[in-house]
Amino acid sequence: MSSIYDRDLEQNQANYQPLTPLTFLERAASVFPDRIAIIYGDVTITYADFYRRCRQLASALAQRGIGRGDTVSVMLANTPAMLEAHYAVPMCGAVLHSMNTRLDAGVIAFQLDHAESKVLITDSGFSTTIEAALELAAVEPLVIDYCDRVSPQSGDRLGTLDYEALVNAGDAEFAWSMPASEWDAISVNYTSGTTGDPKGVVYHHRGACLLAQGNAITASIPKHAVYLWTLPMFHCNGWCFPWTMSAVSGTHICLREVRADAIWAALAEHGVTHLCGAPVVMSAILDAQPEHKRSLDQAVEFFTAAAPPPERVLSDMRAAGFNVTHLYGLTEVYGPAVVNDWNTEWDSLAAEQQAALKARQGVRYHALEELDVLDPETLQPVPRDGETLGEVMFRGNVVMKGYLKNKAATDEAFAGGWFHSGDLGVVYPDGYIQLKDRSKDIIISGGENISSIEIEEVLHKHPHVTAAAVVAMPHAKWGETPCAFVEVVASSNLTGDDLIIWCKQHMASFKVPKQFVFDTIAKTSTGKVQKFLLRQQAARLAAAADSIY
Amino acid sequence: MSSIYDRDLEQNQANYQPLTPLTFLERAASVFPDRIAIIYGDVTITYADFYRRCRQLASALAQRGIGRGDTVSVMLANTPAMLEAHYAVPMCGAVLHSMNTRLDAGVIAFQLDHAESKVLITDSGFSTTIEAALELAAVEPLVIDYCDRVSPQSGDRLGTLDYEALVNAGDAEFAWSMPASEWDAISVNYTSGTTGDPKGVVYHHRGACLLAQGNAITASIPKHAVYLWTLPMFHCNGWCFPWTMSAVSGTHICLREVRADAIWAALAEHGVTHLCGAPVVMSAILDAQPEHKRSLDQAVEFFTAAAPPPERVLSDMRAAGFNVTHLYGLTEVYGPAVVNDWNTEWDSLAAEQQAALKARQGVRYHALEELDVLDPETLQPVPRDGETLGEVMFRGNVVMKGYLKNKAATDEAFAGGWFHSGDLGVVYPDGYIQLKDRSKDIIISGGENISSIEIEEVLHKHPHVTAAAVVAMPHAKWGETPCAFVEVVASSNLTGDDLIIWCKQHMASFKVPKQFVFDTIAKTSTGKVQKFLLRQQAARLAAAADSIY
Repeated sequence: MSSIYDRDLEQNQANYQPLTPLTFLERAASVFPDRIAIIYGDVTITYADFYRRCRQLASALAQRGIGRGDTVSVMLANTPAMLEAHYAVPMCGAVLHSMNTRLDAGVIAFQLDHAESKVLITDSGFSTTIEAALELAAVEPLVIDYCDRVSPQSGDRLGTLDYEALVNAGDAEFAWSMPASEWDAISVNYTSGTTGDPKGVVYHHRGACLLAQGNAITASIPKHAVYLWTLPMFHCNGWCFPWTMSAVSGTHICLREVRADAIWAALAEHGVTHLCGAPVVMSAILDAQPEHKRSLDQAVEFFTAAAPPPERVLSDMRAAGFNVTHLYGLTEVYGPAVVNDWNTEWDSLAAEQQAALKARQGVRYHALEELDVLDPETLQPVPRDGETLGEVMFRGNVVMKGYLKNKAATDEAFAGGWFHSGDLGVVYPDGYIQLKDRSKDIIISGGENISSIEIEEVLHKHPHVTAAAVVAMPHAKWGETPCAFVEVVASSNLTGDDLIIWCKQHMASFKVPKQFVFDTIAKTSTGKVQKFLLRQQAARLAAAADSIY
Repeated sequence: MSSIYDRDLEQNQANYQPLTPLTFLERAASVFPDRIAIIYGDVTITYADFYRRCRQLASALAQRGIGRGDTVSVMLANTPAMLEAHYAVPMCGAVLHSMNTRLDAGVIAFQLDHAESKVLITDSGFSTTIEAALELAAVEPLVIDYCDRVSPQSGDRLGTLDYEALVNAGDAEFAWSMPASEWDAISVNYTSGTTGDPKGVVYHHRGACLLAQGNAITASIPKHAVYLWTLPMFHCNGWCFPWTMSAVSGTHICLREVRADAIWAALAEHGVTHLCGAPVVMSAILDAQPEHKRSLDQAVEFFTAAAPPPERVLSDMRAAGFNVTHLYGLTEVYGPAVVNDWNTEWDSLAAEQQAALKARQGVRYHALEELDVLDPETLQPVPRDGETLGEVMFRGNVVMKGYLKNKAATDEAFAGGWFHSGDLGVVYPDGYIQLKDRSKDIIISGGENISSIEIEEVLHKHPHVTAAAVVAMPHAKWGETPCAFVEVVASSNLTGDDLIIWCKQHMASFKVPKQFVFDTIAKTSTGKVQKFLLRQQAARLAAAADSIY
């Protein structure tokens, strides 16, 4: 029904602009040109230089015909080039495809082909894998070599273009354009998901802008905060922090490798105020050699996800001067879209109770409009009793556009107008959610998603294997590791070591199961593998192994 | 040109929701139900109660047929009811029309008629004016009386419905709905503008959401901040702070009147961290009786607009424990859309230099995409020399939908794809803008916009007056007051006192000129009044008056 407020009050250039995080950098460079945007080893880059370099890279890409909807893939560590790619690529209208640097050549080739990659910016530290991937891939992207000057890598150059030379030759005044629409893609991030082939999760400018701001508001990140890169930027675009930090004109501290000594040095020398990471990063901080630990002048906010922080870690982190906030999300929701928003009333509880409360994944970010645990059949909310299991579902502006070139998976993920996470959880009376079982086919090891189905498919290809099922096994350091249950042909004398060799030939080494069990796999009467029984068995094996050492 | 990122990746309920600030309150009430949302005298309202009361009021309005696109007018002081109106009215799809409580009956009647008001919520403290306005108005809104229990007012009830009774009878579980579109109107705020008839500036949900978040990011407002209401909420919806505070789950401290003793008491007793106001509020704070001043445990952020804070005020405020940030905006840009974003490098400058830098209006909010000073003819940016005058123009998502039922004014304001502020300014080499001349026909007195043309029209109606021109005259307390230059018929012995009486009959008393000059009015050869000469003359008169006292 039309009202007086609908007449002659249309959108125009003056009152409507596409939401995008790109304007954050333009503003930071304009308002605080001399402020340090990036520190990496002995390299410091001001906001004026950061913006200039991004424009130069964008112009260099545009000169080579890269434009709207083209995919620019990057295989980069947490270096300044990775931050620059987060702005320069979308500045020329293209879509950033960051790859997990631990992937094997086969998966990389799949991603390059699937995303129809036009350009590949690759750190020479990953040359061996990338060279193999380029041999396997059908596409022939323009290859740009990034040679890390702070931490020189031994790998070969693979292309004809040098990143630094390309940037320097670019137009510092390049008139980059806003996205044609805020719904335009800004990046694609592949997730192993629950099927063998990775799915390309497409982010749009609107969501990236809103989650980047959402981080600042949710975490009360003030102007000029100092952020340490212990979270890989290839994970969900670093949870959008490459964009958040420009919104607050803060400083990025880049780290190529997550090492305890480097983390402590950065914390102390650069006055780091915020960092993110899986629990393994907290362990690294806490388990550092005494000579590497430093006293800190500032309070440090640590945002963790992938697994609930254990009570011991929380108390140790607090004693070390860190405030830990538990986040939860998935690649499909730009990284963190759920926060264990701490209630100050809980400060007076016993440490054990606090840890129990902090183990809950929590409530929606502001930038997410709805979070709920629903019965996956009826889409009705489960009772808020902390007991009834349902599927965690999301609805809002920080949910992906969908899966690239995969309408079936997109439609399934969005069935009924909710994004179905595949994670099972409960809702407490106070509205906080807690995961009770992971999406059944995903193993999270050291913060990395590993698809059990992908491993099963590799195992199934071995001529002696007749059945295989892979589940998560608890692991003190990595959180979880894959545990494989295998049935073999009667004549076989296959060993675990044989299968490790087999797996290493067919997948990234971090995905290789740490444990093999040769036994009949528990199945239902209809032949469905009873993974929950296997998980129990794996947990017993892990506990037994712990008791030995 | 279509790309792979445009196919099968459409918007749906799961990944696209209208932006609106209404979800902020729902979230705060869900996550922090027991936290205090509002304190007013001895009344405290938790977030659970705040949300419940808003839903009740929304349901009561909906039950009476109020829905999408209907105008709900309010004549309210900075009381909890005013905060509730900011959520409850849009929760039922309606549009909030907050009126300046100092307006006279004629202007109120005009606004009610122009906005086609369906409901009027009115504080009994304003009954006399409202009663007269309702007699003048053609519309017959449903009148709801708000009777302030903390500060009882003597005025009569005008309607048949009592605000508190209405809220209590409402449905606490009312299923309010998101706006049909984020472009839907959320409020209308009338501005005196440069013509006699007020113009209705229409805000949309998208802009309100983005500016509310923009306040938090621009001003680094942390979770659970405590905000004191010294800025009238009828001004640009309180610069969107009624919504900002829910985004950070903060506490509103309501004040009916801006009195020094009440401000100091609130600062000390409630731990206020943030407040806003015109310079007159800073003067009130600084000029408080010694027995009213209190020592504060917390740092306080003060956001000021309407006039540059003088050096003396800045240093006195700093000494009193306040950090002052200078903002600038207009009703058409949701209040503040420009901030004097302070550069820490300037901290070491002399106080005089700091004041000069702080007097500049500054740079765009994150939530505003573009701010510039353009040649109004060519729309080309002026040189960034700090000298060349141009018109300040805005472009972005925190610019109004347009003027209600005024296509001509809307088209003019948005000519060339920029919002034309009417303010004249310069750009410094560092990109900060500074106003050099106000929009020529506006006088800002105590933070209130007064249209000189409106006063001139009243003067012109006096039978003895042949010509009248009104300009701003500097005033120590109010910043500016109107000064009227009048030409009268030869036989007249009209005095200033006569004209004061005349004016008081035809306009709100705060608009009545403080000074009348009976003289020939300086005009150009083409008959155009040379207001800049009159302003100089008024300034001399003000200086002379100062030197007497």
